[in-house]
This record gives sequence, C-alpha cells and structure tokens, in this order.
Amino acid sequence: MKSNLIFNVYVPTRILFGCGELEKLATESLPGKKAMVVISSGTSMKKFGYLDRVLSLLGRNGVETVVYDKILPNPIRAHVMEASGICRAEGCDFVVGLGGGSSIDSAKAIAVMARNDGDYWDYVDAGSGKGKTVLGALPVVAIPTTAGTGTEADPWAVITNEELHEKIGFGGDFSFPALSIVDPELMVSVPPRFTALQGFDAFFHASEGYIANCSSPVSDLYALEAIRLLAKYLPEAVNNGSNIKARTKVALASTLAGLVESTSSCTSEHSLEHAMSAFCPELPHGAGLIAISDAYFSAFRADSVKRYMKMAEAMTGHPSSGPGDFLGALRRMQTACGVDELKLSDWGVKKEDFPAMVQNARSTMGGLFEFDPRPLSDEEILEIYRTSYK
Amino acid sequence: MKSNLIFNVYVPTRILFGCGELEKLATESLPGKKAMVVISSGTSMKKFGYLDRVLSLLGRNGVETVVYDKILPNPIRAHVMEASGICRAEGCDFVVGLGGGSSIDSAKAIAVMARNDGDYWDYVDAGSGKGKTVLGALPVVAIPTTAGTGTEADPWAVITNEELHEKIGFGGDFSFPALSIVDPELMVSVPPRFTALQGFDAFFHASEGYIANCSSPVSDLYALEAIRLLAKYLPEAVNNGSNIKARTKVALASTLAGLVESTSSCTSEHSLEHAMSAFCPELPHGAGLIAISDAYFSAFRADSVKRYMKMAEAMTGHPSSGPGDFLGALRRMQTACGVDELKLSDWGVKKEDFPAMVQNARSTMGGLFEFDPRPLSDEEILEIYRTSYK
Repeated sequence: MKSNLIFNVYVPTRILFGCGELEKLATESLPGKKAMVVISSGTSMKKFGYLDRVLSLLGRNGVETVVYDKILPNPIRAHVMEASGICRAEGCDFVVGLGGGSSIDSAKAIAVMARNDGDYWDYVDAGSGKGKTVLGALPVVAIPTTAGTGTEADPWAVITNEELHEKIGFGGDFSFPALSIVDPELMVSVPPRFTALQGFDAFFHASEGYIANCSSPVSDLYALEAIRLLAKYLPEAVNNGSNIKARTKVALASTLAGLVESTSSCTSEHSLEHAMSAFCPELPHGAGLIAISDAYFSAFRADSVKRYMKMAEAMTGHPSSGPGDFLGALRRMQTACGVDELKLSDWGVKKEDFPAMVQNARSTMGGLFEFDPRPLSDEEILEIYRTSYK
Repeated sequence: MKSNLIFNVYVPTRILFGCGELEKLATESLPGKKAMVVISSGTSMKKFGYLDRVLSLLGRNGVETVVYDKILPNPIRAHVMEASGICRAEGCDFVVGLGGGSSIDSAKAIAVMARNDGDYWDYVDAGSGKGKTVLGALPVVAIPTTAGTGTEADPWAVITNEELHEKIGFGGDFSFPALSIVDPELMVSVPPRFTALQGFDAFFHASEGYIANCSSPVSDLYALEAIRLLAKYLPEAVNNGSNIKARTKVALASTLAGLVESTSSCTSEHSLEHAMSAFCPELPHGAGLIAISDAYFSAFRADSVKRYMKMAEAMTGHPSSGPGDFLGALRRMQTACGVDELKLSDWGVKKEDFPAMVQNARSTMGGLFEFDPRPLSDEEILEIYRTSYK
C-alpha cells in the first residue's frame, strides 16, 4: 500500500509539551473563569498531589473550580450524564480532564453534554447510538498523567454504555481539546505494569494508523516516529520509571500517536479489544490489545509487506528483509516490557463469548474494519480471538 | 544541538491536500456568505481559469464574491489598506487568497485590517511597526497555486512598507488560515524558473527550521521530510512541469515546510534576504535566498554538525561523513534545478548597499537572528553578502 496523496489535516489543539510545562496552567489564556476538573475515582491524583496542584494553578489564573471524582477505568455513560448536569448547574465555562484517558475522555463527553440536550447515546454515531448532530461543546483542557491514549491530541472519547455492553469511541471537530499540557514529570508515578500497558496502547495507535488504508504522508511521519521512540524507550520507562528522559520520549510518542489518530485512524484491532472490554470491564485496554496483537498483525503480514518492514526498521534501526521482522520485534518489545505472558482468562474473558464479541465489534466499532489493509471475515476475527486465548 | 524537549504545537488550520481537492470549495463549510477574493495583478489567475473556477465554486456554495486584483509580487502595505477598506464597505465575511504567497499573505493582512482600526504598520511588531494588539481578524481561506511559501500552513504574512523600505513577516494566532486547499493540479502551469525559485523557498523554510535552535521533535519530522522530498522531486518538477507526481510531492514538501514555520522558525537567512528585497523589490525572494545560501549555511557548518549530516542523508539517501555533505548536496540540487548561476547584480543589488542591508536585516527581522545556531556578527553578515555577490 502506498500512502494516500489526497488527505486532510485538522488538529486545532494547542499542545504544550515538556517537563515543567504544567506551571503554564497558571499563566496561559484559558477559556473561561469556572472549570469542572474531572478525575478518576482512584487515589493517585490526590495521593501524588496532582489535583491540589492543578486546583492551585487554576486559582492563580483566576479560575474557580468544581471537582468531579468518580470516573472509572472504563468510564461510563452514567457518570458523563451526572457530571454534565453538575456542569450546567454550576455554570462551568470549560472542563479540565486530569489523569489517564478515562478522565480526559470523560471530560470531552461531559463537555458535549453540558451543551447538548438529551442523552449522550443520542449523539454517539455507532452501535445503538442515534447519531444526532452535536451542537457545540464546552472547551476542554487535557492534562494527561499517563502516556498511552493520545487523547490529548485527538477528538476521540471512549465511553461505555454499561447497560448495553457498548464501548464506543466517538468524537468530532467539536471534541478536540482546546489546550493540552503534556508534562512528563506527572508520569513518573505510574507503576511499571501500567506504564507498559499504556505504552503499548500508544504503540498500537501508531502501528494501526500506519497500516490503515487511510494513512497519509503526514500521519506516517507521526506514526513511524512514535513506533521508533516506543521501541527504544518504553522498556526503560517500564523498568526504571524515574528515568525522566525515557518518560519524556514515551510521552512524546503517545502524543505523536494521538496525532496519528487525528490524521489517520485505528484499525479493527481496537474494535476487537473494545468488544472484549465491553464484556469484561476489568480488562485493561492495553492488556487486551497486547494479548491479541500477534494474531491480529499476523493476519495482514502478506497485505502490507513494505509497511511492516518500515515499522521493523523503525523499531530495530536495521534494514528489514520481510514483514516477519515486525512481528519478531513486537514480540521482543513485549518481552522487554514484561507483558509477553498476559492471559485473557485472568480477566475473566470467556471463550464462549467470542462469537458475541465478533458481533459486538462489528456493531459498535464496525467503522474501523473499513480501514484494515483488507477486509477480515468473521471467521478470521474468531480465529484471532482463539489464537490469542490463554 | 539536540532537539528541544520543551515545545508547543498549534496549527488550527484545516488543510485539504491533493489533486482535485479544489472542488471541495463548493461543498466545504465556509466561514460566511460573502468573500473577498484576493489575486495578484499578473495575468495567470485569469489566463489559466483559476479565478473563474474559484468564483464559480464559491457561487455553488452560496457565497457572493468581490475580487481584489492588484497584489504585487512583493505585496505592499498600501494595497492591504485599500483592500481592507473595500472589505469593510462590502461587508465581506471572509477573505480568500488565491495564488502565490503574495496573494495569500495579502489576504491574511487584509483580514486583519478589516477588523482592526488604523494602519497595518500600527500592528506590525518589528521595524518601525508599533506592535499594537490585534483584536481578531476575518477568517482566511488559502488556495495556493505555487509551491514554496508554505503560507497555507503558517500564520505569517510578509508585507513591504514601500515608503520605509521595510519588508516584514508578521502574524499570530489570529492569522492562521481557517481553511487551506492545496491542489497540485493548480501548480502545473508554473514555469520552470519560478518552480525552482519557489521550491527553494520551501527548502530553506525546512532547512533553516531544522537548524534553528527552537526546533522541536515535531518540526524536525516535517523539516527532514520536506528536505527529502524537495531534493528528490524538485529537479523533475522544474524540468518536467507536467509531471503531476513530482508537482504533488513538491506541493506536499511546501506545506510541510509551512508546518515547520509554525512549529519552529526561519533563521536569519530570511532576514538577510528580506533586506535585499526591501532595497531591490524586483529580486524574487527565492532567488535572493539561493544566491546567499552557500555562504549562509557555510557559516554554521561547525555549529550544527549532526544536523547538517542528517539533512545530507535526507537529501542523498546515503550515510553522511561530515557537514560538508549538506553543502555539496545543496549545490548539486541547485545545479539540477538550473539555479546555480544566479547573479544578484542582475536584479540591481548593489555592493554599496550591503552595510545598510545589514542594518535593515537587524532592525526589521532581527528576531530571527536569535534562532541561528550561534549569533552572527555584523562583519559575518557582510561577509555572507560579499561572498554571494556576482
């Protein structure tokens, strides 16, 4: 596949990147005087002082704040609706997402529902969502404390409808963050296992976006550099989390991979994973992706030969002689990051659910299958699930 | 020099790239119902039918139009003021720049003055400009018909104050185009000599932005790819202008180099050239840059060794053994494009003016000197001018 010479680029987000850049929250021009700060229900934003620091910096910038602290690792529709109601009642001008992808994605969805009536699933444009037109949204400020989702550089919000078992990525021009502050110093507190799972999420954004048939010469630049950086620095960030250089390079790769999601697209590996997570909400997104990655990428090894070789060259720094080099480099990277032995069964994934997951993947995130290097049959998808099962 | 790991990215322009994309002007959401279309005083926009086509596409999109067709190759303040007056009187909602950099840069400046009182030089923030705060601007749609300035992907407008001999690049968040349509099919009509001069303008945006001390990991991606594409395809675009693949690659390089100008910066080579053009308005910008490039880049060969080698590798596809490889590749590329024997004296540049040009470069575009790999002395600048003179 050659890169497409007809393409669009649109990423209106202002990205401030670098160690110490969080301080700019006190001085940067912000889109209002009252903000809802969205964080997860976990303890880390408070324990590491990130919440207090953000509230204080916003205060120095003359911004009043309301905190919403219930977001789950797989964030749910009910919290989006509750928080957007509070946003309206409190008259918030913008929404700050502080934390991992769950908090920032929720901030995006909350910002939409603070400006649009009805239910979030009225607007979601896949699964059983009604696809109504979104009429604007509050501005979002994204402050990631993990490196993986890339949500700081793309319009997507992945929210689960807990009643319908639908985990869907949705967004549009209205949901790019207005401002994203990517400060790698906030990421040194992430434990090794999560560093690895999140880093591989970024890796798959880049590698899927690179083999996607909608890739462009611009998305290719971001993708290959993200792949190169992750292969080189993710193992060190996992094994020595206080290495700020490695953290910085992995954060950069995550943001570049977010730009890939804005300029190319994920492929159906993400559909397959979302279907598993919709059935087993405890399964971390990155773990699901890693578990199926070898089978998934093996499926296209004959369809995207040159691109697999280019990815291998970015990962190894050496000329590649065939697409298998990429699969080998991917396996070695997983070993180096200690995630080569993940068992889907540990998170309660059941073989019997595979046929239903295939249907779920098609119905909730079917659009991504169109970007695969070639169409996958249901039988092939089942085979990817089966081969990946331990 | 290593790349900076603290940096910003902000390019809110929607870019539609590719052959045939101009047709989207009839269907894309546009920022209003009445547009001023700005073109040069030359004949090509009419002769090749581009103006009629743009007016017709805008009409199909329900947009009324007013044409302003006086822009000079080095566009002047007086035309900015006249056109912005017409814009106000006619109640235009947005400004379309159709043509080369002069028309698009003028469109940006006109859009500013349609929304701000007083004179354009009240807002310009260098030279004798007063640096007043710009309070918004009309949206701009950029439709380049040349590949070189990159203005479709950056906020800069280069306007000459004809009374003061000041040629200054000025812009800010307010002057990014809202929409840019880069359709290489509009570029096949550019004659060989102009193709070369414009292509080298793009080359220097990329190469200056790559050695600039404010370069970032993101600008580096754009810069090296632009350099690679231009070295590979510019000679073919010059020598066989109907080769649409070469035109497309050169157009892509120009847009990438525009992104470099948005994420890194030009260095003082551009200050030196603007000073020459301010004294000799007939001197094409690209010709001025080419004429001084060997002396300019020779000045930093010991300061940016690795980066010169990386540029050489991008240009040749082979490992580089030293910074001289870049200078050699640059000379060979100029020979291949038939621009290795440009004589500044042919455009009326006078040796006696060099000391005044040094002062002009410092006073009107002094900011760019701060981005050089190391500070240049006045004596070194004089030496660059003198060495380049034929």
